Amino acid sequence: MMKKIGIVGATGYTGVELLRLLATHPLIEITFVTSRSNVGTRVDSLFPNLRGFIDLNFSNPNSDELADCDLVFFATPNGIAMQQTEVLLKTGTKVIDLAADFRFKDVDLWSKWYGMTHTCPDLLEEAVYGLPEINREAIKKARLVGNPGCYPTAVTLGLLPLIQSGKIDLNDIIADTKSGISGAGRQANVSTLLSEAGESFKAYAVDGHRHHPEIEQTLSLASGSTVNLMFTPHLLPIIRGIHATLYVNEREGNDTASLDLQSLYENFYANEPFVDILPQGSHPETRSVKSSNMCRISPHRPRTGSRIVVLSVIDNLVKGAAGQAVQNMNLMLGFDETTALMQPALLP
Amino acid sequence: MMKKIGIVGATGYTGVELLRLLATHPLIEITFVTSRSNVGTRVDSLFPNLRGFIDLNFSNPNSDELADCDLVFFATPNGIAMQQTEVLLKTGTKVIDLAADFRFKDVDLWSKWYGMTHTCPDLLEEAVYGLPEINREAIKKARLVGNPGCYPTAVTLGLLPLIQSGKIDLNDIIADTKSGISGAGRQANVSTLLSEAGESFKAYAVDGHRHHPEIEQTLSLASGSTVNLMFTPHLLPIIRGIHATLYVNEREGNDTASLDLQSLYENFYANEPFVDILPQGSHPETRSVKSSNMCRISPHRPRTGSRIVVLSVIDNLVKGAAGQAVQNMNLMLGFDETTALMQPALLP
Amino acid sequence: MMKKIGIVGATGYTGVELLRLLATHPLIEITFVTSRSNVGTRVDSLFPNLRGFIDLNFSNPNSDELADCDLVFFATPNGIAMQQTEVLLKTGTKVIDLAADFRFKDVDLWSKWYGMTHTCPDLLEEAVYGLPEINREAIKKARLVGNPGCYPTAVTLGLLPLIQSGKIDLNDIIADTKSGISGAGRQANVSTLLSEAGESFKAYAVDGHRHHPEIEQTLSLASGSTVNLMFTPHLLPIIRGIHATLYVNEREGNDTASLDLQSLYENFYANEPFVDILPQGSHPETRSVKSSNMCRISPHRPRTGSRIVVLSVIDNLVKGAAGQAVQNMNLMLGFDETTALMQPALLP
Amino acid sequence: MMKKIGIVGATGYTGVELLRLLATHPLIEITFVTSRSNVGTRVDSLFPNLRGFIDLNFSNPNSDELADCDLVFFATPNGIAMQQTEVLLKTGTKVIDLAADFRFKDVDLWSKWYGMTHTCPDLLEEAVYGLPEINREAIKKARLVGNPGCYPTAVTLGLLPLIQSGKIDLNDIIADTKSGISGAGRQANVSTLLSEAGESFKAYAVDGHRHHPEIEQTLSLASGSTVNLMFTPHLLPIIRGIHATLYVNEREGNDTASLDLQSLYENFYANEPFVDILPQGSHPETRSVKSSNMCRISPHRPRTGSRIVVLSVIDNLVKGAAGQAVQNMNLMLGFDETTALMQPALLP
Repeated sequence: MMKKIGIVGATGYTGVELLRLLATHPLIEITFVTSRSNVGTRVDSLFPNLRGFIDLNFSNPNSDELADCDLVFFATPNGIAMQQTEVLLKTGTKVIDLAADFRFKDVDLWSKWYGMTHTCPDLLEEAVYGLPEINREAIKKARLVGNPGCYPTAVTLGLLPLIQSGKIDLNDIIADTKSGISGAGRQANVSTLLSEAGESFKAYAVDGHRHHPEIEQTLSLASGSTVNLMFTPHLLPIIRGIHATLYVNEREGNDTASLDLQSLYENFYANEPFVDILPQGSHPETRSVKSSNMCRISPHRPRTGSRIVVLSVIDNLVKGAAGQAVQNMNLMLGFDETTALMQPALLP
Repeated sequence: MMKKIGIVGATGYTGVELLRLLATHPLIEITFVTSRSNVGTRVDSLFPNLRGFIDLNFSNPNSDELADCDLVFFATPNGIAMQQTEVLLKTGTKVIDLAADFRFKDVDLWSKWYGMTHTCPDLLEEAVYGLPEINREAIKKARLVGNPGCYPTAVTLGLLPLIQSGKIDLNDIIADTKSGISGAGRQANVSTLLSEAGESFKAYAVDGHRHHPEIEQTLSLASGSTVNLMFTPHLLPIIRGIHATLYVNEREGNDTASLDLQSLYENFYANEPFVDILPQGSHPETRSVKSSNMCRISPHRPRTGSRIVVLSVIDNLVKGAAGQAVQNMNLMLGFDETTALMQPALLP
Repeated sequence: MMKKIGIVGATGYTGVELLRLLATHPLIEITFVTSRSNVGTRVDSLFPNLRGFIDLNFSNPNSDELADCDLVFFATPNGIAMQQTEVLLKTGTKVIDLAADFRFKDVDLWSKWYGMTHTCPDLLEEAVYGLPEINREAIKKARLVGNPGCYPTAVTLGLLPLIQSGKIDLNDIIADTKSGISGAGRQANVSTLLSEAGESFKAYAVDGHRHHPEIEQTLSLASGSTVNLMFTPHLLPIIRGIHATLYVNEREGNDTASLDLQSLYENFYANEPFVDILPQGSHPETRSVKSSNMCRISPHRPRTGSRIVVLSVIDNLVKGAAGQAVQNMNLMLGFDETTALMQPALLP
Repeated sequence: MMKKIGIVGATGYTGVELLRLLATHPLIEITFVTSRSNVGTRVDSLFPNLRGFIDLNFSNPNSDELADCDLVFFATPNGIAMQQTEVLLKTGTKVIDLAADFRFKDVDLWSKWYGMTHTCPDLLEEAVYGLPEINREAIKKARLVGNPGCYPTAVTLGLLPLIQSGKIDLNDIIADTKSGISGAGRQANVSTLLSEAGESFKAYAVDGHRHHPEIEQTLSLASGSTVNLMFTPHLLPIIRGIHATLYVNEREGNDTASLDLQSLYENFYANEPFVDILPQGSHPETRSVKSSNMCRISPHRPRTGSRIVVLSVIDNLVKGAAGQAVQNMNLMLGFDETTALMQPALLP
């Protein structure tokens, strides 16, 4: 029997991307799609790409019908999922939040960066951080998953093999990251107009970005030690794609000759369906993952300078959001992890 | 048993798009991919989006092994397919040419516009013009299909209901068309550099374009009378997408009140899986069909002016090339016509 | 002595473009720049390109100081200029409105399309339509100029020679026009986000657009007869540029051989500093006028079809708005018409 | 009397940009523009933005007439200028090379990175590195200037104040740089097609790039010690613009409280006409310098991490090439340094 799936807040980009990916998923049916401001409107009138695939109107998110779903995705702004999750879990509905409400273990850290008081801090311990490459088994058993941020996914996957190698300086890592503009969402906003963001490039939030503590939390847990990194996000004049350029210092006294980067990465991810280590010396392009759930990585040791440079790309809306959420759903509902996610990227 | 498929000339954009679409087709296997200039190279080293999907090297196109295929696509420049088709047909291999070698019935017209002598003019009569919305039954029985051009697909589908209504002036049609730059191919060329074609827009070939006689041929056959149109192509600074803006004159003396455009179009295409008539008053966006085999159409009768305006959009690489070719393959090999082609467009 | 210039509503794109062009004008000084919502803010904090060029804060538009200016530009939404113009004119301040308040002679037509009651209809007779190629002498003497719309400028300049030749059908003209997205302004709006409008193309307002009656008014006045045209605007995924593709029918019985298009256009515009007829057979690119006040035009008579096709390009923010406004200011203040406007376009 | 200027190799982007900037320079006349492959062609037929500004045909670069020029720009590929410079200097013609032939002091380093033998190594000592912010007085007296590379200009200007402060670790600097695609030139090339480079982003030459040793040479000379940096270039899907994100480590034991970054930068560049330190906390956008000779910089000390981050933007074709060359020409010919270079950037 098909599992029933609900999506709360499906008018943003992660919402429509969930709908695109789930539209052809053979084991689920989308029964409920909500949008407070579009109740009664056909979903495909907002998103014509879904014509013929999604035959639903937007509903009110407060409806009891949500609880009939086997699993509900929250594709809402930060602070929304935490208000409805407790009730849903009690009725046996599983929850994946694509925002940050359930990504942090430390509620104070979350409050500091998100400027809100958490309404159900008790759930933070239970919530599983939805990066399957780290938490696959926990996700399978989870009722509640906090889906990772887009930057954190690209950066964490790019750094994990080195972090866990024990051979790098955990206090001297730099993540210079660049994101396509869909990461800024579908809100009306002057700064993300084509006339403003097109044909231009800039850094932003250099002095502090919410994804910074999320990355440090994940890497610290993964390494067993505190990890400190610099994190500098930039805005790309493209719609989809994140590129992380990661600078890592090998520990002094480390026998660098022993660290074969290419093998380290290939072995580490040998069994991962959605992490692809490119041939040695490659420069992954964001377009090589456009529309796909793949993360492509290439580690380098440049001729000059003492640092390792790792290049990591994802589609911010897929592996960085909706695709990873579907991957988590597959795990949580006992499906093959790759169901509905195995399509080549769109190139050109 | 899986059908064996070959692709000749798979280093261009229609080639890689065929590979993307066929990679997940459940009823075929790609056994042979050729490129004269890349023999021995892995296909996915040129097109990293195919990593994990296509495990082949490029072969030499002159190999006898092509004849082992059940069907061969030619994604080659004009004038190549005609050199190999006769031999392949004799061994029982079906052929779909994505170039223009088998699109024309009048060999002299072809020679005039393509500047070559046809090497197998006898096959032109047998060849079926691969627009399923017109020639579905013939395609099912065909050994040889000439896959339509990108502009002709968008323009023909946009005009067909009116052409066949008998109520318009067949000598006074204007097709103002705009194409994404992938239509110009993957050849090194100054004029299609990002620095040249980006952030700009222009008409080209206003004095005559090869797709003009192709459209006139199709529309004339469809209407039973000679159709004359103006055809003005333009170059869009986007990668994928064609938009046709079509101006049609209702015949004098015609009772215009009787021509309900919206119903005419909806009824005409009611059973077509890949033609979608948008709700009345819509303006189809090219992005609504990006990566998809859909053609979306909206007919208008503006407040001012006496003409009907029809808006028609396709993805030039899908319904305008590789997707339509797969649709034709499905018909020729007896599969469900929509196999491997039912995915929502990528939006945003 | 330097003339004093004020700009009301300088936070939109036509406003910042006026500032860019006037920043190096040797005969004027900008004394007053207003923005209701940014009073007290430095102008160059919004527009960093002006750092070092404009040392002013935004003021309140209702200030009496406006009347100290020799000339005031209104770069405001429709309906604002008409509220302040009468007072300014009385104090001897000249006015150029970049919106539509003073473009129409027929106040009812204006009200119908702009959905407002005009507050000073008496001024419409005095106001001069600011297209120097038609109204140069009147502009020189004018106190009040209605600066033309962007589409009307590109279309009118493209059609004028044929309209005045007396040899075309004035009731059968089609203007298929395409505009860069800065024409939609600097308002926060979902539909003009990079994620929405980028990598896509669409028509809009096919059923009726405000620039349609403006064009018909100008062409009717220029020809002495009523002109009817179809007008179809489209949205380009570029920041600057308008391309008009104009289809014109030569009158039946007209000796077409006598109409040498290239000479007609070259002679007509021989003395115009900002209209450039390209060599025969050219396809003007919008980038060839980016940042410049030039309109480049190429008339064609295609091999097939009976119509003339005229291609016309401008930068919508320059010749289509701020540049033309400066050209008008130069005429109104007795300067050389080209002052501060003679810079090559930015290419690439 | 007007100085006579020649441009060798004016069909590339730095060539046409020189022509754009020089077209309105009041103190020079362009007498000679060469292109081996376009002899006899009008310059403005290749670059229509120059119509009305440059009334010349391309000449053969080997003509003796070059020697009649007061100054010749070489906008040619690497290895061309060195073949003609010696002869020109002997006849009293000054030379500015926009390629790398005269940027290096160490001829072996040059040969290693550029893969050629230098034909006039003796001139390397005389040649002045044309970064006015470092070498203004030497440039004024120079006969021969090696115009800096685009990345080196953005990186060097961004690092100079810190390098010369004596308070940073000269062996631990990272330059993560991003360039618009016009930096790759106007050669026909698959990888820079709009269809390939558009809507994508990637690093390139991570293992070693020619601008790396150029930057290290300049910074080492400026600091008096050897400087080592990591240098990672990336390709932006925009036409113009470079953004450098620079990571600098304050020296251990340094009293960081004493290093007021904002004041350090503002004071260092207080008298520079083409370096603009933005208000504290700014994020410079590449579009804020599009078409302009300005470099805009903002130094940051992020909340987390121990490093200083400096953001630096230029237009790669202006301050990164042609504009800086004109600035150097102004100095070499005794003009005001800013002549023909004081225009606000084009925004939007």
